[in-house]
Amino acid sequence: MNSSRPSQRRPDQLRNIQFTRHYTKHAEGSVLVECGDTMVICTASIVEKVPAFLKGKNQGWLTAEYGMLPRSTGSRMDREAARGKQSGRTQEIQRLIGRSLRAAVDLDKLGERTLHIDCDVIQADGGTRTASITGAFVAVHDAIGTLLERGLLTESPIRDFVAAISVGIYQGVPVLDLDYLEDSDCDTDMNVVMTGRGSFVEVQGTAEGATFSRTEMDALLDLASQGIQQLTVAQKTALGI
Amino acid sequence: MNSSRPSQRRPDQLRNIQFTRHYTKHAEGSVLVECGDTMVICTASIVEKVPAFLKGKNQGWLTAEYGMLPRSTGSRMDREAARGKQSGRTQEIQRLIGRSLRAAVDLDKLGERTLHIDCDVIQADGGTRTASITGAFVAVHDAIGTLLERGLLTESPIRDFVAAISVGIYQGVPVLDLDYLEDSDCDTDMNVVMTGRGSFVEVQGTAEGATFSRTEMDALLDLASQGIQQLTVAQKTALGI
Amino acid sequence: MNSSRPSQRRPDQLRNIQFTRHYTKHAEGSVLVECGDTMVICTASIVEKVPAFLKGKNQGWLTAEYGMLPRSTGSRMDREAARGKQSGRTQEIQRLIGRSLRAAVDLDKLGERTLHIDCDVIQADGGTRTASITGAFVAVHDAIGTLLERGLLTESPIRDFVAAISVGIYQGVPVLDLDYLEDSDCDTDMNVVMTGRGSFVEVQGTAEGATFSRTEMDALLDLASQGIQQLTVAQKTALGI
Amino acid sequence: MNSSRPSQRRPDQLRNIQFTRHYTKHAEGSVLVECGDTMVICTASIVEKVPAFLKGKNQGWLTAEYGMLPRSTGSRMDREAARGKQSGRTQEIQRLIGRSLRAAVDLDKLGERTLHIDCDVIQADGGTRTASITGAFVAVHDAIGTLLERGLLTESPIRDFVAAISVGIYQGVPVLDLDYLEDSDCDTDMNVVMTGRGSFVEVQGTAEGATFSRTEMDALLDLASQGIQQLTVAQKTALGI
Amino acid sequence: MNSSRPSQRRPDQLRNIQFTRHYTKHAEGSVLVECGDTMVICTASIVEKVPAFLKGKNQGWLTAEYGMLPRSTGSRMDREAARGKQSGRTQEIQRLIGRSLRAAVDLDKLGERTLHIDCDVIQADGGTRTASITGAFVAVHDAIGTLLERGLLTESPIRDFVAAISVGIYQGVPVLDLDYLEDSDCDTDMNVVMTGRGSFVEVQGTAEGATFSRTEMDALLDLASQGIQQLTVAQKTALGI
Amino acid sequence: MNSSRPSQRRPDQLRNIQFTRHYTKHAEGSVLVECGDTMVICTASIVEKVPAFLKGKNQGWLTAEYGMLPRSTGSRMDREAARGKQSGRTQEIQRLIGRSLRAAVDLDKLGERTLHIDCDVIQADGGTRTASITGAFVAVHDAIGTLLERGLLTESPIRDFVAAISVGIYQGVPVLDLDYLEDSDCDTDMNVVMTGRGSFVEVQGTAEGATFSRTEMDALLDLASQGIQQLTVAQKTALGI
Repeated sequence: MNSSRPSQRRPDQLRNIQFTRHYTKHAEGSVLVECGDTMVICTASIVEKVPAFLKGKNQGWLTAEYGMLPRSTGSRMDREAARGKQSGRTQEIQRLIGRSLRAAVDLDKLGERTLHIDCDVIQADGGTRTASITGAFVAVHDAIGTLLERGLLTESPIRDFVAAISVGIYQGVPVLDLDYLEDSDCDTDMNVVMTGRGSFVEVQGTAEGATFSRTEMDALLDLASQGIQQLTVAQKTALGI
Repeated sequence: MNSSRPSQRRPDQLRNIQFTRHYTKHAEGSVLVECGDTMVICTASIVEKVPAFLKGKNQGWLTAEYGMLPRSTGSRMDREAARGKQSGRTQEIQRLIGRSLRAAVDLDKLGERTLHIDCDVIQADGGTRTASITGAFVAVHDAIGTLLERGLLTESPIRDFVAAISVGIYQGVPVLDLDYLEDSDCDTDMNVVMTGRGSFVEVQGTAEGATFSRTEMDALLDLASQGIQQLTVAQKTALGI
Repeated sequence: MNSSRPSQRRPDQLRNIQFTRHYTKHAEGSVLVECGDTMVICTASIVEKVPAFLKGKNQGWLTAEYGMLPRSTGSRMDREAARGKQSGRTQEIQRLIGRSLRAAVDLDKLGERTLHIDCDVIQADGGTRTASITGAFVAVHDAIGTLLERGLLTESPIRDFVAAISVGIYQGVPVLDLDYLEDSDCDTDMNVVMTGRGSFVEVQGTAEGATFSRTEMDALLDLASQGIQQLTVAQKTALGI
Repeated sequence: MNSSRPSQRRPDQLRNIQFTRHYTKHAEGSVLVECGDTMVICTASIVEKVPAFLKGKNQGWLTAEYGMLPRSTGSRMDREAARGKQSGRTQEIQRLIGRSLRAAVDLDKLGERTLHIDCDVIQADGGTRTASITGAFVAVHDAIGTLLERGLLTESPIRDFVAAISVGIYQGVPVLDLDYLEDSDCDTDMNVVMTGRGSFVEVQGTAEGATFSRTEMDALLDLASQGIQQLTVAQKTALGI
Repeated sequence: MNSSRPSQRRPDQLRNIQFTRHYTKHAEGSVLVECGDTMVICTASIVEKVPAFLKGKNQGWLTAEYGMLPRSTGSRMDREAARGKQSGRTQEIQRLIGRSLRAAVDLDKLGERTLHIDCDVIQADGGTRTASITGAFVAVHDAIGTLLERGLLTESPIRDFVAAISVGIYQGVPVLDLDYLEDSDCDTDMNVVMTGRGSFVEVQGTAEGATFSRTEMDALLDLASQGIQQLTVAQKTALGI
Repeated sequence: MNSSRPSQRRPDQLRNIQFTRHYTKHAEGSVLVECGDTMVICTASIVEKVPAFLKGKNQGWLTAEYGMLPRSTGSRMDREAARGKQSGRTQEIQRLIGRSLRAAVDLDKLGERTLHIDCDVIQADGGTRTASITGAFVAVHDAIGTLLERGLLTESPIRDFVAAISVGIYQGVPVLDLDYLEDSDCDTDMNVVMTGRGSFVEVQGTAEGATFSRTEMDALLDLASQGIQQLTVAQKTALGI
């Protein structure tokens, strides 16, 4: 099939993905992830306390926040700090990032501490939430590495790799890893989060324009699985594993 | 298989569903929906204007808000109006309700007006967001009926029925229509929104505890499809269609 | 005198009042009160702690919150949770409800716990604040009953019944229990809260249009006293006392 | 009867009241009112526009805001601007001030402009809301005077004088004009707003501790009427009328 | 040089300054400061606790808040408590007042208590932030005096006097103590805070229109130093030192 | 004099400064500025409208916002968007950035459009506000270049270069360009903003611990002037001018 994608990619072709570890110096894990033109700084901070509802339970926590620089997008957005609240979209995304990464970490083995993830989009070109998850996993891995090095943990609480990708139906064709042009013009958009071993953590599919059939759903899940296998390999390469 | 469900329901058995139309007198569409012990008042209000971004485009809009009465739940929750903001969960749900119902209505045929949906949970026992969607569709249908009766529309903009249901894996078994006891103790929870003709509008699956396989995913989608067919029949019966 | 009231009621005639106890299943006291077309869900929740300023004083507390569903009224109102704050009117009403019910309960005999009252208006047709007080008293009575049954209290802290009613001067005539049509067109509006034994808890009279004379004030207080006697009887009947 | 009042005043004795007109230089009406040790700056500002709901109706508006300096009281209160919201008490008071003064002014004769009243308590010793109303009336009178002088109005829209006073039952005795010591220790507290001609604008009575009988209510209204007559005289003297 | 100043003052001439101590009765230090037509109530409240970050450090704290009455200015400003937040300008000013006065007080000698400063502008005619600092110092001195009298301190923690003044370049001429007319029309505006012994606490110079040279800067600093010497004398006179 | 600076820099030695232009692809001007380890993304966005107060005045506007990524610092800070408000420090800094850059641009020549500056700190090591100004000037220059290229302006509205630097007294010695270690331990801290031609735009000096003399002030201003000359050269080199 000839590609009709604006980027000339094949339907099942990921954008180039790149991880720059230790991107900033303060965070225990700090990764700049680039998926095509989408750039997100993902940091994992170790905070030596847990939320009130977990106190004394000998268990850790992981939570995530997400933001976009006002001019990470084509036209300037309002700054959420200036508007005085986070949008519904922002909250939805940061809840998704948090749930996805908690699936990767055995909180019982983390000790009474919190991994605080921050995903800040520097440049947006579609797929910022999935890039955030994929990049934040690498940052979490580095932060855990720091805890192991410092002897604060003796065993890694990481259960499995986690990565995320979008799939969608663009001009009638199921495609992998939507960029902004595709995302703003597709009928169905699905974000899939999976483990390195290939099981599902989250599936969020939305009919933007036309509704989608079970056959289309199956094709999208196939594409996503294959894409996430590649992302897991890229994460391992970046981590030197 | 013997049912292990707290309610003694079969794995593929819906809770009893009931629609009370014209529940309150002011709204153009007003429905009390009861799914087992979950009770939601769904109203559809016609507002004769559209948001700024649609002005002059000869097109309508549909938006939704969701809330829970503070003591709709087992222990009293804070009132969001008193706390001064809606939680991330609330925003996520009301965005979902809005998207789901927009899939049911051809906004180009609605005229420059807004259907404002309010879903207020009076009593919660699991599945409040899916009950909201299923009930709100009936309220929308009634509100559209009002517009047709008043001669403000000559053709119904409703494209298809829309209903929603939850499915999940409870004690290793895929089950339909989780109640609170199941919901708080299941491994995977998926909310599915479909049209009356059987295509997908939204699929939101989350691994709460263990991740889920493709096989499990398929079983859940099968259960959901079958449940939504029954809900569509119940909606039609309630509407006398 | 021929009645000029839109509802054809006599000047001293209450609307029909009805209490549905145990309306929802979670709250210790849950009452749907209907005064004519005004419908309010009143719940009383027992919370086993007191505000900071009462800690260690061996004394209980009672507090109230009030809300209206956005489409409880003729045209849709903004949702306060979405706007991010409660209006001055809402705060005024919930402070009034709290003060009124605190007059009915001996807080010294309640133990270190809080009765949290929620009054949520499902359908509004005038008199929502007085219906809230009258209905919430029944919910409080049921919640106290629960505490007695569970052996958490050995003696009821209820000092007296409390009920509330509005009176006003409509087209020159003092009338009892204003509905929405009267309320929006009257010169003077007074809300009166009294005990079952006939003493005053609150009197709030406002000249909306014309000011009012001492003679008119006396007539309004007479009407209110008589109306509240009837409401007390209705409360007792509902409670089976 | 021997006075048991901390201030040694007779039960029917007002505190000393004093109006300093033209207290600050910018406002069209600016009055420092002192009732005993209670000091309030009342300004009336003319703003040449009306709220949206009155636009084009050839009618004016009057609105009021109220605040207390953080250390106007015995122990420092939080600054409402710093906390980010006005308390329920503040909102209740400023709504009362606005309603009371709107009763004094014929808004149809004011022209399409707003009288914006600000009452700021410099020093509090009980009765700040009633002092605010009594003082703000003088400021309104001065602001109207400015409009007449400037030829912006040819006829005064003032219908009548308005003043306010508190009454209460202190140690079993009905007393006039409660100071802080009495206010914090009385059983019943009532704020009464009346016109110069002696009719009621607002009556707000609250049983703080014990409920009150109709006889007590009558005694309180008598005291209030007499006190407000004196306040009206004081207002007239201050205005040189 | 002939004065071009609207007030006819010489370039190096301060406005008349006046301190009314014990202006309100509740605060431990309460000063009405008047600089020409600018009037600010400055109170210093002793609060017997410290912020969390200082607990157990055997050290005191001083913090300040600033506000303007809505009609302290020529046209009415929005009330910050009603808008729900303090402006950036307000926050900047209150941070400046706090820092300036902390330079005057040895917090190690204050004991574990907080001096809470409130500066509320009653009437504004330029220089409200500098008048606030100059007046608040006197209030702090009085509050410290109270602590000494009550035997809560045996030694004064005051290290030096602190006062503040504005200087600017008005119509090409460096002038001292800008009033509103000058302030709104000058090229450069500088606020200078100095100790009684003549060293700098804060210098904040801003080119409003044209930038300024080093020579101009030197002239402004000279003017400010001389003005502050006079203010220190006035403070000492007011305090009877 | 031997350097006592933690970085071993001479007292008058700037940190290495580097500008990466066109850092992100969407903004009309986008610069990553690095001053030692301090990294700030500065973008200048052209928005084709002006604030309400400038409408129809044939004049442009420039405004600035500032933020820090939560983990740009040694320990994680709260995200301002999540807390729901910008701190006083943030507001102070963004007001400073805006004023400083407005001094560089002739707003009368900009046309009715706004330059919206965003300075987001990626990594903080002292001097983030001065680096923001210095970097944002380059971004503004690029954005103006875009307007000239597109023919939307025919003449550059840039009046002069603007750059900023901090100076302070560290261990008794006046030093240039404080890093975090110096900043958190110095007695006096001054931020100076100057034009390329050497005149002052802003001077903000604060005695953190000890107050400072006129002699010290003069030494600091000398250091700052010399540092800003070097920064201007670096800006010109980066811009290829």
